Amino acid sequence: MDSSTLSKIKEIAGEKNYTDALEDKICYSYDGTPLLHKLPEAVVFPETTEQISALLKLANKENFAVVPRGSGTGLSGGSVPVENSIVIVLTRWNRILEIDTHNLTVLAEPGVITERLQLEVEKHGLFYPPDPGSQKICTIGGNVAENAGGLRGLKYGVTKNYVLGLEVVLPNGEIIFTGGKNFKDVSGYNLRDIFIGSEGTLGIFTKVLLKLIPKPTRAITILAYFDKLIDSAKAVADMVSFHITPCMIEFLDKTTMNCVEDYTKIGLPRNAESMLLIEVDGRGSDVDYEYEKVVEALKKNNATAIKSATTTSEANTLKTARRAAFSALARIKPTTILEDATVPRSELPVMIEKVNEAASKFDVTFGDFGHAGDGNLHPTCLTDERDHDQINRAHAAFDFIFNEAIKLGGTITGEHGTGLAKKHFLEQVAGAAGVDVMRKFKAVLDEKNVLNPGKIFDVVPRCEGYLFQKREDVPVFNPDHY
Amino acid sequence: MDSSTLSKIKEIAGEKNYTDALEDKICYSYDGTPLLHKLPEAVVFPETTEQISALLKLANKENFAVVPRGSGTGLSGGSVPVENSIVIVLTRWNRILEIDTHNLTVLAEPGVITERLQLEVEKHGLFYPPDPGSQKICTIGGNVAENAGGLRGLKYGVTKNYVLGLEVVLPNGEIIFTGGKNFKDVSGYNLRDIFIGSEGTLGIFTKVLLKLIPKPTRAITILAYFDKLIDSAKAVADMVSFHITPCMIEFLDKTTMNCVEDYTKIGLPRNAESMLLIEVDGRGSDVDYEYEKVVEALKKNNATAIKSATTTSEANTLKTARRAAFSALARIKPTTILEDATVPRSELPVMIEKVNEAASKFDVTFGDFGHAGDGNLHPTCLTDERDHDQINRAHAAFDFIFNEAIKLGGTITGEHGTGLAKKHFLEQVAGAAGVDVMRKFKAVLDEKNVLNPGKIFDVVPRCEGYLFQKREDVPVFNPDHY
Repeated sequence: MDSSTLSKIKEIAGEKNYTDALEDKICYSYDGTPLLHKLPEAVVFPETTEQISALLKLANKENFAVVPRGSGTGLSGGSVPVENSIVIVLTRWNRILEIDTHNLTVLAEPGVITERLQLEVEKHGLFYPPDPGSQKICTIGGNVAENAGGLRGLKYGVTKNYVLGLEVVLPNGEIIFTGGKNFKDVSGYNLRDIFIGSEGTLGIFTKVLLKLIPKPTRAITILAYFDKLIDSAKAVADMVSFHITPCMIEFLDKTTMNCVEDYTKIGLPRNAESMLLIEVDGRGSDVDYEYEKVVEALKKNNATAIKSATTTSEANTLKTARRAAFSALARIKPTTILEDATVPRSELPVMIEKVNEAASKFDVTFGDFGHAGDGNLHPTCLTDERDHDQINRAHAAFDFIFNEAIKLGGTITGEHGTGLAKKHFLEQVAGAAGVDVMRKFKAVLDEKNVLNPGKIFDVVPRCEGYLFQKREDVPVFNPDHY
Repeated sequence: MDSSTLSKIKEIAGEKNYTDALEDKICYSYDGTPLLHKLPEAVVFPETTEQISALLKLANKENFAVVPRGSGTGLSGGSVPVENSIVIVLTRWNRILEIDTHNLTVLAEPGVITERLQLEVEKHGLFYPPDPGSQKICTIGGNVAENAGGLRGLKYGVTKNYVLGLEVVLPNGEIIFTGGKNFKDVSGYNLRDIFIGSEGTLGIFTKVLLKLIPKPTRAITILAYFDKLIDSAKAVADMVSFHITPCMIEFLDKTTMNCVEDYTKIGLPRNAESMLLIEVDGRGSDVDYEYEKVVEALKKNNATAIKSATTTSEANTLKTARRAAFSALARIKPTTILEDATVPRSELPVMIEKVNEAASKFDVTFGDFGHAGDGNLHPTCLTDERDHDQINRAHAAFDFIFNEAIKLGGTITGEHGTGLAKKHFLEQVAGAAGVDVMRKFKAVLDEKNVLNPGKIFDVVPRCEGYLFQKREDVPVFNPDHY
């Protein structure tokens, strides 16, 4: 990018909100996705919606790319810079603008941390259910951009189910507000929902209006171990057939349990094949009824050592293993690739088997855990990006897993997004005609392809961060590159 | 349309699935919307997805319009034929293809009647909540096209919240399937939700995959009258502030109550200013808790004669007034214009006042009822389309009502759609830039504007059924026109 363009960018954002120092650019050259990184030309912290609009108009004029970014916790490369790009960072947009206790809504800037928003609304007895694993650091804007899920998705749904309105700066710099505080609104097309999960490719969010619900007043947390993997899957199927809806049904396999035990020493059984962590919540006796049915399903399927907790602190103890899963797995090897193949709930037992099959077939180590209640697994490959052969085998194993998921009517991503990491699988899930519709929507809103180009699918050939399919040329993270 | 084009249409659909007889065309020249009608060139009942695809390809080649239609119960003119169009009728597509009790889904053809689908899934202890007023005759495909709401929207949401997947024939004849049985899926853009509520302008649905939930096992229905209108609105606000979520909170005003009493003689008080019908449902003691809080809110706000019912037959008696509301109002005058201005829940009392203000300001009769719990009112004008002056005053009154709704942060339609009837208000709600995005999405999928053109917004000038804004030229229904 030439210095005159950079000067114009600096002029729009203000000098204090602009940097092109190498050490700053390195900080914003990657997100939470392993193996992907690219230096941006500059990093900008705009302060107003008008500045964002002006930057996009300039991008259209000067033909550079704009990559929006919150905390950068994404796991599909959605906020990794691309060739000839600037990063727009929104973490300073951290004000909660309104909590409306009459309409049960909250209006927030996109940089508000998810957990902070949850805690603020809970002061009013209200509840914002989506709880992505990164909720302590991720932002609401990023959650909307990726349509983030979480542990409570089974009962409460995902981010999309709580977004009522969005202020969006379109790729051409125009500003729209779509949606509002109406619980029903069918005026015109539902634009709001096409922006949700669009991974920063169709617009930059500057305000987010979220729906809240009354906070449940009771919860019971239940933990159980299984000697046979299939029994834990059958227990989940039985809970569904009993027509109860726990707010969470989480699964951990043996590898994950052993890594957690090495890390936390909380006394998980070394020989169990799997564990389930279940929570039922609500207000009155419905909670007790659901608890009884959960225990019935667990006992029927030979669960051992069923434990339950009714206080928050006891529950937190039971949840330790699940909460520590990713960190515990990440200690084992230098590179941890966390994926989220998802299948219809009924296909979960088959999918768990397929992950094990992938591990032995391609000689790689997988820990497997995730949201069993909604078929959303997180097969996690423990590997080392410096070992190109091992990385290639890991890629082959994930290829196998995604193909099997698709065969089962599943999808390549339940909650992490397509980004750069999985775009070469998209056509298999959405079909060529489906991806063509997506491309058309992108092209008609972003004629010059300036906003986060090359994510989700290729629009026009454009150089970008490491592409998953280029197996022969895996970059190794090395600061000397810069 | 020339006879050679009509022959090609007949050839695609088969002779037995085609008619251009005047008496048949008249039957399909209107939907549930008053004042709008237009003769199509032919009526076609295609039998396969491939036939629908072929018809759309032909439409692009021969430049005629295609208007898809279910039962034609729509209230915004979404399925009224346009100039040089054929109607594609989907009521014969009435098979329920699969009820999946493991994943809690149902796959249906678009012509399945909503109530029939509900009854079929209830045989498995499952529940499809959306319950538009026309559920005994409307179709699932039409529900998806209009994103239909209903009485249970407050707790259970609208049609959109239950659509998991759609098979869609695009305007160019291509066939895609978007979505699936996965409870979480963020692969690519969320195409599914842009088709929901697109009113037959972006695609024709040929399969609909719906999410089901376990059926609640208990319900309590509560009826109460009020001497002051404002008290009923305050009671609703109190229920919200108590953090309970009844499955329905329905409102009827004095005019509606008196029309219902004239019609049904069920003993509604002649002097009450309003009534509320509330239902709480669930499984266990949560229902009792919510019932107690409802009664507390009612008593606090001076409700008279609070009645409750726990059996279905008792509940049906209490629901008679609400169910009869539209029919009772429709008896009074030859023309009944039912609208659905919607506001944020907290603005309901103001909006009810504004409807009364409109009635006296423009000297027209309004009955007002609707879904108080989600701010979705149905101000209903009792008028006579043969009296042009009165119709013009009715239009002016609705203009006033919609403008006031928009000022309150509301919308022009909560559940009926934009169609032809309200497209001239769309820009006020969605903004010029927002409507521009809608137009772009339409144009990029339907380059020749063949699929239900002129609905929701104008794309290119094209002659169509009566347009609401042409006040000076109100057509009167007259079979001699044909």
